[in-house]
Amino acid sequence: MTGQRETGQAGRVIFTRGGLPESIHTVHVAVVDGGGQQVASCGDADLVTFPRSSSKPVQALPLALAAPELPGDELAIACASHAGTPEHLAVVARLLARSGSTVADLRCGTHPPFDPAAAADLIRRNEAPTPLHHNCSGKHAGMLLACVLNGWPREGYTEHAHPLQVRIRELHAELGSVTLNHVHAGTDGCSVPAFALPLHGMARIFARLAAPSGPLAPALERVFQAMTAHPFLIAGPGRLDTTLMPLVPGLAAKMGAEAFYGMALRETPHGPLGIAFKVQDGGERARPHIALAVLEALGVPVTEEMRALAPATLHNWAGREVGGVEVEVPLKWA
Amino acid sequence: MTGQRETGQAGRVIFTRGGLPESIHTVHVAVVDGGGQQVASCGDADLVTFPRSSSKPVQALPLALAAPELPGDELAIACASHAGTPEHLAVVARLLARSGSTVADLRCGTHPPFDPAAAADLIRRNEAPTPLHHNCSGKHAGMLLACVLNGWPREGYTEHAHPLQVRIRELHAELGSVTLNHVHAGTDGCSVPAFALPLHGMARIFARLAAPSGPLAPALERVFQAMTAHPFLIAGPGRLDTTLMPLVPGLAAKMGAEAFYGMALRETPHGPLGIAFKVQDGGERARPHIALAVLEALGVPVTEEMRALAPATLHNWAGREVGGVEVEVPLKWA
Repeated sequence: MTGQRETGQAGRVIFTRGGLPESIHTVHVAVVDGGGQQVASCGDADLVTFPRSSSKPVQALPLALAAPELPGDELAIACASHAGTPEHLAVVARLLARSGSTVADLRCGTHPPFDPAAAADLIRRNEAPTPLHHNCSGKHAGMLLACVLNGWPREGYTEHAHPLQVRIRELHAELGSVTLNHVHAGTDGCSVPAFALPLHGMARIFARLAAPSGPLAPALERVFQAMTAHPFLIAGPGRLDTTLMPLVPGLAAKMGAEAFYGMALRETPHGPLGIAFKVQDGGERARPHIALAVLEALGVPVTEEMRALAPATLHNWAGREVGGVEVEVPLKWA
Repeated sequence: MTGQRETGQAGRVIFTRGGLPESIHTVHVAVVDGGGQQVASCGDADLVTFPRSSSKPVQALPLALAAPELPGDELAIACASHAGTPEHLAVVARLLARSGSTVADLRCGTHPPFDPAAAADLIRRNEAPTPLHHNCSGKHAGMLLACVLNGWPREGYTEHAHPLQVRIRELHAELGSVTLNHVHAGTDGCSVPAFALPLHGMARIFARLAAPSGPLAPALERVFQAMTAHPFLIAGPGRLDTTLMPLVPGLAAKMGAEAFYGMALRETPHGPLGIAFKVQDGGERARPHIALAVLEALGVPVTEEMRALAPATLHNWAGREVGGVEVEVPLKWA
């Protein structure tokens, strides 16, 4: 998968203890400009990998195209990996009702809310989680509405051959400027297709969000505006997308499982940029450290409030400092 | 840290999705025989790293030496990273009382029980966790008793300069056959010193547990017997040490944070062996896969019950198969 091609030096996030490296994460980064050109990278920008939930802005495009008047919070929840708080669930329920669907129509499966307080509340009330609590329930509610508005069957909306999923795969290829046979299909944690494509392709998709053009521009703009206007809905309390977006002007950011990250960045010294990165081992804890290092390398001012999202020192359960985090993301400019 | 020296090929655990690699963990392994000779390795057996809680059998030795009549369950809980169930807490409380200590004397800090059912019970009862629930509370209770029996102050028992911690550092060097200046000190999640040493040193320590000899043999034997007689106390419901030990004759196994693993193995075609491995990125999910691959490579029969601990297929929240796990641990024999 890596190390077979000639690539630049990969990035590393090193968790130290007592001054010694304890664990090391390897990272690959691609940066694409508003014109679709790859302008910088670190490690293997050709790495074919799964963006997972970082694909949600693409998966929401058929909805944004079919429902131009949809309230921004409902479009945002369709792009979200939400934390299952009551605020999130209320918006999902509203979007779900819009297509005449119910919880029974959701095919995402069920897991406890990501938000610890929401999960504890369920336990206290002795209630089991429902598919509404699944972090992807907004995406699924949006997919059901996109089906109804396009005249596609709701039945089988998660299947690879369903017209909605076929269209989403095409959109990955079109927006990522990769041929369709370079968009590989797996199945995601919520049972819809998960597409894999080269890292530079996902960076290009986020660059399109940062600098929309062509026939999809209005829908891309609606998705960008919805995400940046509703950072809480995109993730939840204390989670990276939610905390980072309000701190960086013109940033739409979306996490994906297994430590993928996509950022659409409108205001940099290099103009609008799209960024995609993947931690090779899927280690989620490395993500905020890499995000800040990349933003800084791209000339975005990194404030103390932003640094607090990726602390350079580690403390134990007793509050004692036990280690640190060293970040090496040597961006190579094209 | 790695890749600077000439080393054998490292192992890999590859999580796949739709037939493509999604995330990759790198692993280093050392195997030492009953005579203390390194007999096999994979990757960098000289890697200096922190065994974390895999050190607990060593940290329990001063207790095993000072209290030869201590009940096996109490010695086991001193070696444990326990899950905080009522069964675990009862044994910790008994051990703690033996030195006239109370929960207020524990310096481990506080975290919710690892066992989800025990954690949910606390939430339902609206109770906050106490230091007793910390996975290391048994180790700390054992350290307090070792202090009292040795005439050392209980005060400051977690400090690097305390006679107990000085002795534990020396034991790492003696049993690992490394010079004391190759045993580096950091601070652990529970505030006691965490020692780092070459991987082969930790494998040698587990080989001593598998084949005790010399003046420490009786204490090593008591620790081995306590661990293997009480696998539930060592970890907890569904956790690897607890489930694996009863399935492998003559195995004492101990997990450490950041995906370290130590195994003392009495019955193999190569005689008694000690094994230590570290997943470079700290990815805990790779551990059962590597443990089984190493056991198999060493000639230990791997049963279906054992394979169930490291499933080769991955399922999503809706129960659908979405991926798999490929394991490459090319052991190189010395």
